[in-house]
Amino acid sequence: MHRTKVKVAEDALDANETIARANRDDFDRASVRVVNLMSAPGAGKTSLLERALADLDGVRAGVLEGDVQGSADADRIAALHVPVTQLNTDPSFGGECHLDANMVRSAIPSLPLDHIDLLVIENVGNLVCPAEFRVGEDARVMVASVAEGEDKPLKYPLMFRTCELVLINKVDLLPHLDFDLDRFLYNLDAVNPDVARMKLSARTGEGVDEWRSWLARLPDRVAAAV
Amino acid sequence: MHRTKVKVAEDALDANETIARANRDDFDRASVRVVNLMSAPGAGKTSLLERALADLDGVRAGVLEGDVQGSADADRIAALHVPVTQLNTDPSFGGECHLDANMVRSAIPSLPLDHIDLLVIENVGNLVCPAEFRVGEDARVMVASVAEGEDKPLKYPLMFRTCELVLINKVDLLPHLDFDLDRFLYNLDAVNPDVARMKLSARTGEGVDEWRSWLARLPDRVAAAV
Repeated sequence: MHRTKVKVAEDALDANETIARANRDDFDRASVRVVNLMSAPGAGKTSLLERALADLDGVRAGVLEGDVQGSADADRIAALHVPVTQLNTDPSFGGECHLDANMVRSAIPSLPLDHIDLLVIENVGNLVCPAEFRVGEDARVMVASVAEGEDKPLKYPLMFRTCELVLINKVDLLPHLDFDLDRFLYNLDAVNPDVARMKLSARTGEGVDEWRSWLARLPDRVAAAV
Repeated sequence: MHRTKVKVAEDALDANETIARANRDDFDRASVRVVNLMSAPGAGKTSLLERALADLDGVRAGVLEGDVQGSADADRIAALHVPVTQLNTDPSFGGECHLDANMVRSAIPSLPLDHIDLLVIENVGNLVCPAEFRVGEDARVMVASVAEGEDKPLKYPLMFRTCELVLINKVDLLPHLDFDLDRFLYNLDAVNPDVARMKLSARTGEGVDEWRSWLARLPDRVAAAV
């Protein structure tokens, strides 16, 4: 008896990964490079964006703001005349603690992809779940505030392990903290030894030039890597 | 024709609420009062516990430490000779970003309920999902670090709305930050006007006596309320 063999898809993707690839295809077609910017609450994502996006060496940037609710950060970005779209996880997405690929997909029609070169997706402030969901980004950047302590790479390793750049923010506070920067870097190396890292202060502007340059050069770097 | 009327349970509880009540019953039978301690990563939960639990005016305390992985905080508590149990959400519970009632239930056999009066459950560092899951606690306490900015009550309202006490930590940093305490309190009042609040510094010890006293008196307050 002839039986049709059941085929098993070898590289079955989960739904999030499937949608993240679709997002990435849309971004690629529009030649828009995408950064997924993550951190704990209050580490300084928005302040570092304000510092960097005001003058990005001719690169046209846009921002997708992810928050549980409200639009306070989006208002700050809009004040810089940078195009910004707000994505609230509450109530449309059940008050989720992270962005996922499908939420970002729902926002794509609202994004001015034909008029920007770089899209920064500011994720919900959280060191756990955002790291578990690709959204179609080219690069992941995370902000770690020195006020949070040296142990965070060990306590939230997936977040630190899956990013390409760690922004060590609020270094102006170092004289007033017991934070041991060498210990932090040792812990970071334990989970992601090759990750790029920069020391910054959104308050004083220290290190902001380097961060702005990293963002401005991302489209060229991605193009060179293809 | 006679038809049996279908009964609808009016106050159907979700599974988490059902298990939280079972936990609470177990805690009540053992006369143990329970605090669910929550905050963003690095706000100072463990440091404030170290400060308070070393001498709790005769109240016997224990700690249940919730973390995605690792036991660094539990080791710090154990050094005070306070009984501590570690509960990791990874890998047993899928790396969850919060504790829920069922995770706490799984830890109850490991807790020395007959030898303590007060149990502090230190939740995973996260301002979103921990607020959505009761675990059987008598009181919810959250720590907000002044380094996180004034806007957090507006961005994470459920967390600030569902707690009985807000510990405003790291006030020793106030001279070095642009943090506007009045603005923070205004935002806090907007989401939870009646919540108790204390200003503290785990680093300098400011406010720690008041926090320790609040913890030490919790068993009496709960008994008086019954």
